Amino acid sequence: MVDSTGLPEFADVVAAARRIAPHAVETPLIESAALNARLGGRVLLKLESLQRTGSFKFRGACNRIGLIPEGERSRGVVAFSSGNHAQGVAAAAALFAMPAVIVMPKDAPRAKIAGTKAFGAEIVFYDRLTDDREAIAQRLCAARGAALIRPFDDAGIMAGQGTAGLEIARQAAARGVRLDAVLVPCSGGGLVSGIALALSGASPGTQAISVEPENFDGMRRSLAAGNRVGAPSGALSLADALMSPVPGRLPFAIAEIHMTAGLAVGDDNLAAAVAYAARHLKLIIEPGGSAGLAALLGGQYDVHGKTVAAILTGGNCDFETVAACLSRAPDA
Amino acid sequence: MVDSTGLPEFADVVAAARRIAPHAVETPLIESAALNARLGGRVLLKLESLQRTGSFKFRGACNRIGLIPEGERSRGVVAFSSGNHAQGVAAAAALFAMPAVIVMPKDAPRAKIAGTKAFGAEIVFYDRLTDDREAIAQRLCAARGAALIRPFDDAGIMAGQGTAGLEIARQAAARGVRLDAVLVPCSGGGLVSGIALALSGASPGTQAISVEPENFDGMRRSLAAGNRVGAPSGALSLADALMSPVPGRLPFAIAEIHMTAGLAVGDDNLAAAVAYAARHLKLIIEPGGSAGLAALLGGQYDVHGKTVAAILTGGNCDFETVAACLSRAPDA
Repeated sequence: MVDSTGLPEFADVVAAARRIAPHAVETPLIESAALNARLGGRVLLKLESLQRTGSFKFRGACNRIGLIPEGERSRGVVAFSSGNHAQGVAAAAALFAMPAVIVMPKDAPRAKIAGTKAFGAEIVFYDRLTDDREAIAQRLCAARGAALIRPFDDAGIMAGQGTAGLEIARQAAARGVRLDAVLVPCSGGGLVSGIALALSGASPGTQAISVEPENFDGMRRSLAAGNRVGAPSGALSLADALMSPVPGRLPFAIAEIHMTAGLAVGDDNLAAAVAYAARHLKLIIEPGGSAGLAALLGGQYDVHGKTVAAILTGGNCDFETVAACLSRAPDA
Repeated sequence: MVDSTGLPEFADVVAAARRIAPHAVETPLIESAALNARLGGRVLLKLESLQRTGSFKFRGACNRIGLIPEGERSRGVVAFSSGNHAQGVAAAAALFAMPAVIVMPKDAPRAKIAGTKAFGAEIVFYDRLTDDREAIAQRLCAARGAALIRPFDDAGIMAGQGTAGLEIARQAAARGVRLDAVLVPCSGGGLVSGIALALSGASPGTQAISVEPENFDGMRRSLAAGNRVGAPSGALSLADALMSPVPGRLPFAIAEIHMTAGLAVGDDNLAAAVAYAARHLKLIIEPGGSAGLAALLGGQYDVHGKTVAAILTGGNCDFETVAACLSRAPDA
């Protein structure tokens, strides 16, 4: 793979796993007897909440930044994000001793700004109403010769995020489990397409299934339509990390080859999954990161008689959000 | 081992691991680069919060109940506890299809009562001010021929809880790590003594170190004195699960052989550890279950240049407690 604009291949995911191995956590794949009993099937949970920076985003950022040739590293990287991608890029850049600039909205929560700064990144603020964050990022890249690290529409990001799928395949095989499917939270589609690619080589026959919030289910609609179409969006979702109404170009190109269908879950499902994770699994999972579990608890995916894995990812979840979900889903 | 009143041996821990393997979770041993950087040493975290019923208590209960001969199982088990031990016993009894009676204070939080009932246990209530819960439990045992499952002063419980130590030794060895110590939350001492026993055979040279709340540091004082002495207690501790002022007879007998010293942490340390776990590790850990991490963050154990493991356990932590710790330790 010479650049990050072509379609990634299975070999790129394997190479990414080697590249990020010294830095990334091989996150555990756990099982809860109580959850299995409740759902009438077998569920393995991949705890990306325990990944460096608290989310799978580190995998993609670390691989993508690792692909930058040595001679260009001093020029640094630029990203725009107020969430998990910002922290993933900032942390990965620090590991390669590269300067990082993150373009963030000036009204971003202070905790997120502080979290990103803590990794040594420089923050450039923009105004959500009047500025174009991508244009600002492009200008910064041009001025510094820095590389723009996109959140999902990038082969290096997809291959890096797909390493979670390689691990799931290996960890499931080690306990003699054959997986019917892996349920994956989906926004722009980088993670689910990367995992689909990983499974195509490492666990053929295991389906990667996207799970999106209702009204932001662009991947589900696009897979059904056979081309990239947008979701209505408009309304907000509890899953603030998954509010991309249309899948990325490269993620959808991979999804068309390796995936068949996607699922959508409502805010009640997401709140119940966050509450279940906190109450019964003792895990802090952000609403977006709980989408796979939400589809299982909500019945959008019927796991009776099947064995599946679901990605759980923590990330930038503040405590108030978890508390609100616990109130909203007292019986979850 | 013919009964549960003699001292357990290393072979009992190995046998316990085999006995509970079909039921217990082999919990992950994870590492956080950010925590290592902050502490200037290497820390592996054993996530007993992901154990069945959310705490290590299941290991002991499952082993102890599994030791009851087939012919006596229909008579059931009795335990007194309002916390993690109650749920561990109730869940383990259900797996062996045995009736379980849990003696609980009538003012126990409804969530704990409901949690215990959910495992199919019968609850017998007592009045904290006027009743003797142990006498009630003994009467129930005599009437039914049931076995009393004590929380820590029992060889079967200690051997079962010690299986966490066997796993730590194996998981650390698998990544080529030699552990200087394992930091273990301590109340009556069943867990830390079981782990000390496990390490004596599986990782000689690795110290098991008890961590107790200040004023409830009976193990620390007893190890220093060379015999069982009580802590002043009196005041309450944030770690409601660790408020035993004196170690159990059998746990201290093992501790005298295999341990050298213990540590004590204050409520501020415990709150900071709970907050750190929630904020940075995305884990819900109860104050008592965070004692090992508290000793690392609080500096009671200096990990510079060393490699240690710490047990983290979740258990019966309600959300208000975590929220209170986050408020109390805004910078943790």
